[in-house]
Amino acid sequence: MSERDEFLRVAGRAAEAAAELAPLPRAAKDAALHRIADALVDAAPEIVKANETDVARARENGISDYMIDRLSLTEQRIAAIAEAVRKVAALPDPVGETVRGTVLPNGLELRQVRVPLGVVGIIYEGRPNVTVDAAALCLKSGNAVLLRGSSSAYDSNTALVRVMQGALAGSEVPADAVQLVPGTSRESAKHLMRARGLVDVLIPRGGASLINSVVEESTVPVIETGVGNCAVYVDADADVDTALDVLLNAKTQRPSVCNAAETFLVHADIADTFVPRALAALKDAGVTVHGDERIRSYGEDVVEATEEDWNAEYLSLDIAARVVDSLDEAVAHIRRHGSGHTDAIVTTSQPAAKRFVALVDSAAVMVNASTRFTDGEEFGFGAEIGISTQKLHARGPMGLPELTSTKYVVTGEGHLRG
Amino acid sequence: MSERDEFLRVAGRAAEAAAELAPLPRAAKDAALHRIADALVDAAPEIVKANETDVARARENGISDYMIDRLSLTEQRIAAIAEAVRKVAALPDPVGETVRGTVLPNGLELRQVRVPLGVVGIIYEGRPNVTVDAAALCLKSGNAVLLRGSSSAYDSNTALVRVMQGALAGSEVPADAVQLVPGTSRESAKHLMRARGLVDVLIPRGGASLINSVVEESTVPVIETGVGNCAVYVDADADVDTALDVLLNAKTQRPSVCNAAETFLVHADIADTFVPRALAALKDAGVTVHGDERIRSYGEDVVEATEEDWNAEYLSLDIAARVVDSLDEAVAHIRRHGSGHTDAIVTTSQPAAKRFVALVDSAAVMVNASTRFTDGEEFGFGAEIGISTQKLHARGPMGLPELTSTKYVVTGEGHLRG
Repeated sequence: MSERDEFLRVAGRAAEAAAELAPLPRAAKDAALHRIADALVDAAPEIVKANETDVARARENGISDYMIDRLSLTEQRIAAIAEAVRKVAALPDPVGETVRGTVLPNGLELRQVRVPLGVVGIIYEGRPNVTVDAAALCLKSGNAVLLRGSSSAYDSNTALVRVMQGALAGSEVPADAVQLVPGTSRESAKHLMRARGLVDVLIPRGGASLINSVVEESTVPVIETGVGNCAVYVDADADVDTALDVLLNAKTQRPSVCNAAETFLVHADIADTFVPRALAALKDAGVTVHGDERIRSYGEDVVEATEEDWNAEYLSLDIAARVVDSLDEAVAHIRRHGSGHTDAIVTTSQPAAKRFVALVDSAAVMVNASTRFTDGEEFGFGAEIGISTQKLHARGPMGLPELTSTKYVVTGEGHLRG
Repeated sequence: MSERDEFLRVAGRAAEAAAELAPLPRAAKDAALHRIADALVDAAPEIVKANETDVARARENGISDYMIDRLSLTEQRIAAIAEAVRKVAALPDPVGETVRGTVLPNGLELRQVRVPLGVVGIIYEGRPNVTVDAAALCLKSGNAVLLRGSSSAYDSNTALVRVMQGALAGSEVPADAVQLVPGTSRESAKHLMRARGLVDVLIPRGGASLINSVVEESTVPVIETGVGNCAVYVDADADVDTALDVLLNAKTQRPSVCNAAETFLVHADIADTFVPRALAALKDAGVTVHGDERIRSYGEDVVEATEEDWNAEYLSLDIAARVVDSLDEAVAHIRRHGSGHTDAIVTTSQPAAKRFVALVDSAAVMVNASTRFTDGEEFGFGAEIGISTQKLHARGPMGLPELTSTKYVVTGEGHLRG
């Protein structure tokens, strides 16, 4: 069988599983999730063994220690993954929620209710825990999932999916509701991207190049996630201590993630007070500042910023910095160079906060808070499948409701249109 | 300037206009819409003249009288179009609505608020009234719009957009918020489809081939609209008179539209009672029935149905028909052949209605009501930009809220992530 035929067979089974799964009540889905959690713990030695194959291959290929750490599974990490599945089981079921309901003037009852999307495709890089997290969120929201992980984690992902399918086999949820896309070639990912009609949505999780290639190739609707070039704007009316705290937290609390700050902008009126203290604090924290001419006038260690710096998602201890003459200039910078993820203003001025919130067109706008708060857990969603930086369907952290669609149910008594 | 450069210039101006338009209060947008309505009425003779050029060209090209009627504008029709704009002005503004809001345990205030999408592209066929309807809905929801109508209506659309821009020039809404895509070539539509980053969403309105080509070519997120292969299922427990009324209304009240019925399915237990009466009534109404063997056993006039009939969106006085042995067989038929638009069950059985609603995966499911009710006006939305048959972002009739995205606004007092 060709790889494409094999893919179509897998996707067809996923679509059938999705139809069976969609009407299941919460209790059936939660029981299946607990079975998965138990099975993962029981099979931990087997999963670790499969993971060792991936890790050995990664070492042969000279992968960095950091990436190997991300790839590695231990029994302890597997226990944490299982615990995360139990947490998903404990979340409310979004399916069946009435989003809006009314009785129309002609007596028709109109209800818009949440239903599963159907088959969700996930294309992701790196960590094998995503395999389980994504599957749990999809199952809980009544969706079948087709997983296409990194080839570097293929053995781990295969073992994890085998264990999950084994657990589902004894539950009301069909085992085909969780499947790996067959093969590890670039071509195999394309089958998923071109499976319009079989796959209802595709969520790429990874770097900008992965996301761009999915958007370019896919005929399946895509939800873009995760690229974050986030800015902190320190307004003329900022409290300087607050601004320093927010900037340092946003940049250094976890520099490798999408909601870390990559740029700071300072109003000229406060630059003399703020910039020297900020440069000192950032230096102490090991951060390299890439500044414009005005920022560079405050410190010798500041590297000259280029156009690339304004657009960069460093994901490292680097930050771009610029002095602006007005809030509107800060907004224009963010609209031009930002990625529409999260941007923050630090100010004590209510009109400034209001204007910044109104004009910055990003998934999340923070007022006197760190950009690091844009996160499904922090927002109280319990878990997230990713952070959408597009405007369609979902924007910002995506929890369980964002993994659903809706359906209109209209009930009459033989109503006819006149 | 090349057509592509010209397009990029137009789209760039639209993006700037969108940024200016987004924060405007409702009053400013409503005033602009009333100016547009007044200007359309004032310029009616000029618009009719431009339309005559399109109509003359259509006649030369041997276009059918039906299509020429759809294309034609009279002063009376222009007055009706202007009136529709005033109706849009009277609708509530979706922008700024708080969709969800809470105070997080750490004291952060979290609000999810509706914001405009930005720049909306519309690719449409046929009637020039869509030019004004779409522009009005986009402006009201704070979006700039790029319109790409049929080349057959180019002169009419050019005149309509010129009049709308003239009206906007005296308002707070920038005139560039409504623009035509330059050119009439196939290539010019492609510029719009490839304008990811400049255009936030693309809505194709037209036949299946237009929609497929947009989905295939577009890197801009697309909302699919409108293809309707709708079914009426007459359950074993149907009231026969109700079933006849619903079927006739769904098929014949307006056969050329997407929410008209194209198939009926009858439970075997009620076929002897229902089918003969249905065939007689449909014949009286001028409807040709394309039936399976069991339907054909009830009437000589029934044409043999092929696989194509089950999949057909006739948009004419034709209907496919089949006898099924169970509700589940009806559901399987609909899942396999339907377009996910609207499907109806006629039944007095509560369990049957519940099961049909749960298992049919369509934008709208009707219980004892005509499929013709799936419509923004009928649902009480005041107006619609189209009917989405996809599951992402919007499903079913799309009103003003469906032309918005959301933004999270998070307000703290120097909150840091620990």
